[in-house]
Amino acid sequence: MSHDEEVSTHRHVKQQLDRISERDGTVRAWVHRHDDDAILGALATAPRGLLSGWTLGVKDVIDTFDLPTERGSPIYAGRTTLNDAACVALAREAGAVVMGKTVTTEFALFTPNVTTNPHNFAHTPGGSSSGSAAAVADGQVRAAFGTQTVGSVVRPAAYCGVVGFKPTHQLVPLTGVATLSHAFDTVGWFTQGVDDAATMFSALTGTAVLTTEQPLRIGRYRSHQWDAATSETVAVMDSACDALCQRSTEVVELDPLPHLESVFEAANTILHYEIVRVFAWEQTHHYELISDLARKMLVRAKDVTHEQYTAAHLTLIAARREHDEFMAVNAFDALLTPSTPGEAPLIKTTGDSVFNRVWTALGVPAVHLPLAMGPTGLPLGVQLTGRSWRDGDLLASAALSEAAFNGDT
Amino acid sequence: MSHDEEVSTHRHVKQQLDRISERDGTVRAWVHRHDDDAILGALATAPRGLLSGWTLGVKDVIDTFDLPTERGSPIYAGRTTLNDAACVALAREAGAVVMGKTVTTEFALFTPNVTTNPHNFAHTPGGSSSGSAAAVADGQVRAAFGTQTVGSVVRPAAYCGVVGFKPTHQLVPLTGVATLSHAFDTVGWFTQGVDDAATMFSALTGTAVLTTEQPLRIGRYRSHQWDAATSETVAVMDSACDALCQRSTEVVELDPLPHLESVFEAANTILHYEIVRVFAWEQTHHYELISDLARKMLVRAKDVTHEQYTAAHLTLIAARREHDEFMAVNAFDALLTPSTPGEAPLIKTTGDSVFNRVWTALGVPAVHLPLAMGPTGLPLGVQLTGRSWRDGDLLASAALSEAAFNGDT
Repeated sequence: MSHDEEVSTHRHVKQQLDRISERDGTVRAWVHRHDDDAILGALATAPRGLLSGWTLGVKDVIDTFDLPTERGSPIYAGRTTLNDAACVALAREAGAVVMGKTVTTEFALFTPNVTTNPHNFAHTPGGSSSGSAAAVADGQVRAAFGTQTVGSVVRPAAYCGVVGFKPTHQLVPLTGVATLSHAFDTVGWFTQGVDDAATMFSALTGTAVLTTEQPLRIGRYRSHQWDAATSETVAVMDSACDALCQRSTEVVELDPLPHLESVFEAANTILHYEIVRVFAWEQTHHYELISDLARKMLVRAKDVTHEQYTAAHLTLIAARREHDEFMAVNAFDALLTPSTPGEAPLIKTTGDSVFNRVWTALGVPAVHLPLAMGPTGLPLGVQLTGRSWRDGDLLASAALSEAAFNGDT
Repeated sequence: MSHDEEVSTHRHVKQQLDRISERDGTVRAWVHRHDDDAILGALATAPRGLLSGWTLGVKDVIDTFDLPTERGSPIYAGRTTLNDAACVALAREAGAVVMGKTVTTEFALFTPNVTTNPHNFAHTPGGSSSGSAAAVADGQVRAAFGTQTVGSVVRPAAYCGVVGFKPTHQLVPLTGVATLSHAFDTVGWFTQGVDDAATMFSALTGTAVLTTEQPLRIGRYRSHQWDAATSETVAVMDSACDALCQRSTEVVELDPLPHLESVFEAANTILHYEIVRVFAWEQTHHYELISDLARKMLVRAKDVTHEQYTAAHLTLIAARREHDEFMAVNAFDALLTPSTPGEAPLIKTTGDSVFNRVWTALGVPAVHLPLAMGPTGLPLGVQLTGRSWRDGDLLASAALSEAAFNGDT
């Protein structure tokens, strides 16, 4: 970094730290944080790389050697680990400075935690990556890692009005990340814009995202879950299409795809079967420390049989194959779909992942792009979903779409 | 348990403990072990379930709350965890008593560790699940968990002469298991016979393995790697086919399958790309504690690009699809293939996984069945591979095959 860059970085990070000290009492995005001097000091000594000068929030289900990882549960209060999760180690290697651990819901499930929506403290930031989305949205940190098993990156990104990227399942190592449901768990990240999301992708994968000037071909997909969309979501989908069409994107209207009809239920079956087993130790040793909501889910989940589980996997395998063929045959760059039913609801839930589950289950990359403010003054946006192992292509399409939404020429 | 069962269990476990005290100095299967009184005491107080009375070895890459998990590396010396890995918690819930942690190669890679082959101490037990295979083979423990990323269950099972079962990828949660290559890592187990392997499967999954009396239809598959087979492996494949045919199994000769031709290399590409990232923290913080062999692998691995990695994934996706169709169209219960090139080599390597990599990469279940002793007096056997998410069917086929190999009527 040049001296000028150093000064500018220092100033930006000071602004983030000031923002935290001003807002942390109400936004409550952080579980553990390094003190300000440590963060400013680390900026100067961090390795030089793609993420030089970046501060980073790390969801509290992702291990860090220098701060505890408590998984949103009193079972893990004070738990420390010898090592960083692989994604954290890679980000640090590229120059990022870990600012702290961000609030997660218990085990990355559905019980709300303390974080509020920075746009309106009475509303949820979404979950389970609540603190990561809120901290980035509030200008407290440059980027933050989250995880998505159902909708835990895209949903909070939408509710908080930031870019949320969930890559292809298993693209980023889950080493050092708490399991929720291994069939679906995926490390993703929150940033202010697509350019930062692409830079993080490059830092983790070692490849560049190639920008494209080709007009996009996008399928407008309302999905089998379309009934859940509120009028503001209908409106933001229309706005997105209008903006894209003005930039010569070809938008193709799609009816609900038959090959995706069973995916939602199959994903639910797999999640339930897996959580019973993934949390075997917690249930045996600390049942009294598990929240009521999680206990109820675990009780219901015990009814799922191995036969249902394997049948659901076979359903997903077939759906993934058909969806890949569908995308290839139709030469779609991405599908445009809702991210959430509407604006962030009140804080007593973390909102609804109804528009996320199918894409996570397919394993395809998905990105949330903010677009407008809704009738309640909370952010709205849309989701683009791509093809497995073609994450760079989706990020390139997202960059073009973001420019269209921003009216950039 | 009835009083008689308790007495019999106590006697069996005493025999195992005596065996350990007699042989541990040379077999060296254990890293950490509970003391004898603790094990005998735990037998009396363990929950009642499918694994009541079972002692269990746990590969030292799998976390246990009551013993350290050191991953075969000085980096992790003395490392403890709050919780059990999910597979260990499930086995304990079903009544198993953890006897101790078994020796693994460093990070479950290729550098040999201290364990010897119980049939001949100058020879390798195989790796990376060296201690688990040796301890079961030597009668020191009823069953043991291992992990397979390339051939780390089937190969040591073959070299030590026990049953080794690797289920479908991701069937058993990897929660609490050290990552090597997340695309392939799979928890498996070692037992004396297929009945015990099936009981462990039932304990972990909640389903029974249904025995079948239907004659099997098996493809005899020499594979693209057949040139690596020694004459003793050719002979044991012939013996297996003879025994199966005598039990009215239909054995179909198969040429190397075109859809599997690229799988070996694709798997290698993915493994290499992933280890660079999975071990990011270790390389940054403890490079000097990584073995020469692993360092060399990491240096070579850095040349694999993201583009090669994603291309390899697309190759595997296509191969899995075609293989699944191939197995279904031909109505094969299993493919019969070599487990290893031959008997266990001398102890300076952990042997060759050339016959395992393709099946692990496909994600299909695989089981090693011991069959005979080779010219050097070391065990030989064969591998049966099945279809993804149909693990129970493969175990049922394995039970019939085992009976055929044993000449049971």
